[in-house]
Amino acid sequence: MVVELISVGTEILLGNIVNTNAAFLSEKCAALGLSCYYQSVVGDNEERLCGSIQTALERSDILILSGGLGPTQDDLTKECVAKVLGKELLLDEHSRKRIEDFFVSRGYEITENNWKQAYAPEGAIVIDNENGTAPGLIVPTNGKHILLLPGPPNELIPMFENQMMPYLNGLEPGVICSTTVKLCGVGESKVETDILDLIEKQTNPTIAPYAKTGEVHLRVTAKADNEEQADTLMQPVIQELQKRFGKHVYSLDEKVTLEKALVDLLIEKELTIGTVESCTGGMISARLTNVPGVSAVLKNCFVTYSNKAKRKLVGVKKETLDKHGAVSKQVAKEMAKGLASLHKTDVAIAVTGIAGPDGGSEEKPVGLVYIACCVCGVTTVKEYHFSGNRNKIRENTVARALIQARDCVMEM
Amino acid sequence: MVVELISVGTEILLGNIVNTNAAFLSEKCAALGLSCYYQSVVGDNEERLCGSIQTALERSDILILSGGLGPTQDDLTKECVAKVLGKELLLDEHSRKRIEDFFVSRGYEITENNWKQAYAPEGAIVIDNENGTAPGLIVPTNGKHILLLPGPPNELIPMFENQMMPYLNGLEPGVICSTTVKLCGVGESKVETDILDLIEKQTNPTIAPYAKTGEVHLRVTAKADNEEQADTLMQPVIQELQKRFGKHVYSLDEKVTLEKALVDLLIEKELTIGTVESCTGGMISARLTNVPGVSAVLKNCFVTYSNKAKRKLVGVKKETLDKHGAVSKQVAKEMAKGLASLHKTDVAIAVTGIAGPDGGSEEKPVGLVYIACCVCGVTTVKEYHFSGNRNKIRENTVARALIQARDCVMEM
Repeated sequence: MVVELISVGTEILLGNIVNTNAAFLSEKCAALGLSCYYQSVVGDNEERLCGSIQTALERSDILILSGGLGPTQDDLTKECVAKVLGKELLLDEHSRKRIEDFFVSRGYEITENNWKQAYAPEGAIVIDNENGTAPGLIVPTNGKHILLLPGPPNELIPMFENQMMPYLNGLEPGVICSTTVKLCGVGESKVETDILDLIEKQTNPTIAPYAKTGEVHLRVTAKADNEEQADTLMQPVIQELQKRFGKHVYSLDEKVTLEKALVDLLIEKELTIGTVESCTGGMISARLTNVPGVSAVLKNCFVTYSNKAKRKLVGVKKETLDKHGAVSKQVAKEMAKGLASLHKTDVAIAVTGIAGPDGGSEEKPVGLVYIACCVCGVTTVKEYHFSGNRNKIRENTVARALIQARDCVMEM
Repeated sequence: MVVELISVGTEILLGNIVNTNAAFLSEKCAALGLSCYYQSVVGDNEERLCGSIQTALERSDILILSGGLGPTQDDLTKECVAKVLGKELLLDEHSRKRIEDFFVSRGYEITENNWKQAYAPEGAIVIDNENGTAPGLIVPTNGKHILLLPGPPNELIPMFENQMMPYLNGLEPGVICSTTVKLCGVGESKVETDILDLIEKQTNPTIAPYAKTGEVHLRVTAKADNEEQADTLMQPVIQELQKRFGKHVYSLDEKVTLEKALVDLLIEKELTIGTVESCTGGMISARLTNVPGVSAVLKNCFVTYSNKAKRKLVGVKKETLDKHGAVSKQVAKEMAKGLASLHKTDVAIAVTGIAGPDGGSEEKPVGLVYIACCVCGVTTVKEYHFSGNRNKIRENTVARALIQARDCVMEM
């Protein structure tokens, strides 16, 4: 079946935001075995939006529209779909109640325009929005299927994955299954070189690499009549990848993040963890506390931005700071050791570095970061040189800190 | 004049890459005063690409195509443009020589398909590529203009900025300027309702609202002959918005984030700040430390996930925890007061809540969050009920904490 994407929003046409939704939806549609020949972006304009819907319906089987479901006058997607199909918009009582509950529970005033979100074209399947007020919609029409999703990615992504994908998956026989082999601590080009032979001869299953900060995910995808057959096709490839990348493989589960893999390892080994951060300012503890249930292992976390805080909270010596400077191997080491001993954590991660844009020197340039990890009394410190802007340096530091901690805990 | 973008490449349709080129080109076109009504993505397929070019030429004055200029058989953009216009492709001797020099100077062998890149449609202006081998092209035709750019961003961006923008700028006089009025602590639909009258009568300048967690940005855009005239058009609207939203306006500067506005306010008032976080696990301190120069005001930050940490690090009383529970107004208050007094910060933000998915009860459901803010000895605590998943609850909490801190500091 052929799918087509239409992203609705003047903010995309103006270049105010990058259309990451389209990339997400395309990838998911490809994984579902749907062919996508066209994507388009159109503004909040009735004539042009109706025209684009009409054209897409003539040449594709499935039309996925994102954006323009909000409460304002600008939001026209639902109205245009109804117009093109010659359907009326009817009040959906279930959605009306959900919107009312949403506002009442927060003690917010309900403005008149909010009720607009409770209307749906005749015959539409209404999809609850767990992360916002605009419901999604599936409108089946003459053997074709129009899907409407809210624009904010934090609403669109879970709605598509949890509610729309099962619907699309049911439209055609056969299944497409995939497993993601998640790697950390090994670069993208190294991974690609190491699997070139596998990629060159691939047909079914296929292997597709995706890089993110500090990680590479290898998605293995198989087409078959049923899940069991797909799994049989995938298993030899997955095992080969595990053999080639060994301890770099941190999970085969799409839902397991790097921080979750670390937390699970700590729970398994019955070790507590704490952090003391300078340039990352709490980003490492924020990553760790993404994991539900982290309270079983998480002890105290500190942001010690100033020298005073480093001394007072984790006992870094004044002489060490004076002699080597705050961004140094020695200070990173004392931060980790101090945290572990003063606050009794089995694992202590410490970070000190220069995230920029200011504060760099010839000797200690922007991007220089030291990460120390103390595990049951043994401390290792590594020096890193990251490039990019402040945000990029901080994100890289967080990823490396989690990987380093995982390595140290695995080795003990 | 109306511009339209067509991005060519199967890798975009498959979701393997995010179409950042479109965002870049859109923003630049908006800055040039060009109106963009449509963007599309089409694969490396002759029939569909020719169709898209034909459609775009019928409805737009300027067509910008990116991608598909490479040496392989898959690369069809130039060929399709020539076909649609009924023009021949001719060898461009200047480009041929540049390609030859490129390969010879690197000692690479020239494969036959590389010469394909030296051909251009009759009457085209050839644009040298300083960062690759595929030249860009400008094809003027019947009062319309077709621009062809290579797909890799490191080739496309400099070529567009340095060589294509001056061409486009010469087509029409005038500029488009915009200013963003950034609001916090007021909901999108409330903002929309409050400016309905302004939006309904708008022509030049226009006002466009964009929502993000805890914030609404109002972009005011004017077209005029020059920047000064555009500014004169925008000023009354900006002043009216400032009048209507008062203290909710935290900046008129596109680059100033909410956390930067708070940090600037603290620097101005010479106040230090610290944080003590439970459910947000360091996300508030991470936001604050996004701001270069925050070290002037940032004191100690703590993540006190456990009751023990709350007692030990910021002096919450055991009786308070036993009587009211960790997620309570009383504990939030003691966390803020304890941080301020024990660690001598002028402003203390404290957060305790239930981010889920587990840990909720009927009395204290997932999404219940208390945020306390102590400013120079005066502590205010607010209760919030957030919805959505763990991440959404945490993000909302961070935004509200920053807004609450800003409010408290402004009021003192």
